[in-house]
Amino acid sequence: MSLLVIGTLAFDDVETPYAKRDDALGGSATFFAVSSSFFGPVRLVGVVGQDFPDAILARLRDRSICTEGVEIAEGKTFRWGGRYEADWNTRHTLKTELNVFEHFDPKVPSDYCGSDFVFLANAAPAVQMKALAQCTKPRLVMADTMNLWIDIARDELVELLGKVDGLVLNDEEARMLSGERHLISAARKVLEMGPKFVVLKKGEHGAFLISEDAHYAIPAYPVDEVVDPTGAGDSFAGGFMGYLAAAQDTSAATLKRAMLYGTVTASFCVEGFSIDRLEACDRGAIERRFNEFHSIVSL
Amino acid sequence: MSLLVIGTLAFDDVETPYAKRDDALGGSATFFAVSSSFFGPVRLVGVVGQDFPDAILARLRDRSICTEGVEIAEGKTFRWGGRYEADWNTRHTLKTELNVFEHFDPKVPSDYCGSDFVFLANAAPAVQMKALAQCTKPRLVMADTMNLWIDIARDELVELLGKVDGLVLNDEEARMLSGERHLISAARKVLEMGPKFVVLKKGEHGAFLISEDAHYAIPAYPVDEVVDPTGAGDSFAGGFMGYLAAAQDTSAATLKRAMLYGTVTASFCVEGFSIDRLEACDRGAIERRFNEFHSIVSL
Repeated sequence: MSLLVIGTLAFDDVETPYAKRDDALGGSATFFAVSSSFFGPVRLVGVVGQDFPDAILARLRDRSICTEGVEIAEGKTFRWGGRYEADWNTRHTLKTELNVFEHFDPKVPSDYCGSDFVFLANAAPAVQMKALAQCTKPRLVMADTMNLWIDIARDELVELLGKVDGLVLNDEEARMLSGERHLISAARKVLEMGPKFVVLKKGEHGAFLISEDAHYAIPAYPVDEVVDPTGAGDSFAGGFMGYLAAAQDTSAATLKRAMLYGTVTASFCVEGFSIDRLEACDRGAIERRFNEFHSIVSL
Repeated sequence: MSLLVIGTLAFDDVETPYAKRDDALGGSATFFAVSSSFFGPVRLVGVVGQDFPDAILARLRDRSICTEGVEIAEGKTFRWGGRYEADWNTRHTLKTELNVFEHFDPKVPSDYCGSDFVFLANAAPAVQMKALAQCTKPRLVMADTMNLWIDIARDELVELLGKVDGLVLNDEEARMLSGERHLISAARKVLEMGPKFVVLKKGEHGAFLISEDAHYAIPAYPVDEVVDPTGAGDSFAGGFMGYLAAAQDTSAATLKRAMLYGTVTASFCVEGFSIDRLEACDRGAIERRFNEFHSIVSL
């Protein structure tokens, strides 16, 4: 089945208590695409500046990521800079230079319009809806969002929620969006806004899936050493949807297995800067860690 | 099979961001005993002051908790006071009045000495060893500890670890004891010190079991509303060992199921002050939540 992601390609300047990396390839669509590419081809829609090396797009294409939908616009590529505290959960954003992403007008190439699985990575809900409107017969649409949009574009976000099947969000966002403190109540309230399922990400504390007919909670994979948490959420979404698209199924049982695959790709993501560790993996590495994680969470 | 706990009975003065309760019945042995009593009889060794109401001991006896080993000493009962932040993970100890517990010299009644399952709740390792020395043929011994003992009584603690089968500790304690930052590496290092298994408690983020032949990670049960986290760890241990004692088994598969039962009793504990919520439960309520939790964590 065909999988499409609309989101950012970026350069990140990342600081952790242990190391620092400038000009790291990042962006929601990048992490999603690389993580989902283990399961099959993926189509990428985004925008980069003229400073974006062709060689990177070629590297992505080598992983069966179709970059036909990556527009090269006049100006510079989106750049994000942040610093993590030693607990990994506290992140300080040091810079957000939208650059070419500021006026991103997603254009889904005509041969992508019929994609079955669509991931709308974090962006203004109006932009996400513009992208979605170009998809003619999606079988499953999942969206990400962030506190900024809950705050300043709530109406558009609520409109978007009526059009998607799944939403991924972290605990803080779930509380903000629903007005409920308790996470499960918060997720239930979000379900009432339209999505058929909600994936609550709790970082190093695991993830929770809630839908009408499934409640599923998993811890995080116990990685040996976190190097850089940037991209973990999008890598989770990539593994999750990559598996769904490959399985060609959206039943509760398949969504649950997809949670494990999402955890696995996210765990590889955080073991390196940028997509370093993910790029060094193959499907075999994913399956070995899936089996290990499956045994860790199984009675 | 017979189950014995040696630990504290106490009065707690607890403050949360939402409520306050003084003179709440607490103590490690209390929470353990009540939580394990759902699965069968439990024997309690501890000390209280002359201010400790007989009626409370009678309430415990009504739950098949044998209080023959509870010494009534001259002076006042151990008292602890603390305040929780809204994140529930940050706890400020406001008072620790050891009172009669200061010179606690555990005396295991002769008819308890042959107990099969023994839990050494948090106390000075020397006291824990004194209690253990009176047990003639324990089949499984589990101990709890705290940062204080890792800090000021490390040698005795290491000696104790050579004599126990299992150790429960939280992530901070595991790091302190092992000198390893990474939790799994920390747990492995603790295993080298003697115990056959380690249970890592991560509060609202679940728990991890590590032994030579089992790695098992579970999230916490998603409680509707936390009222008071005091006693959660001991309630976990109580459900865990209560189930083991009832199952008369210590295989990896049974240890894993015990993790779920420990999570269930801990979840009831935190839904009320003191043992309020636990006391309002029966075995049926435990089983219903076990089944619910089991389905939440199962593929």
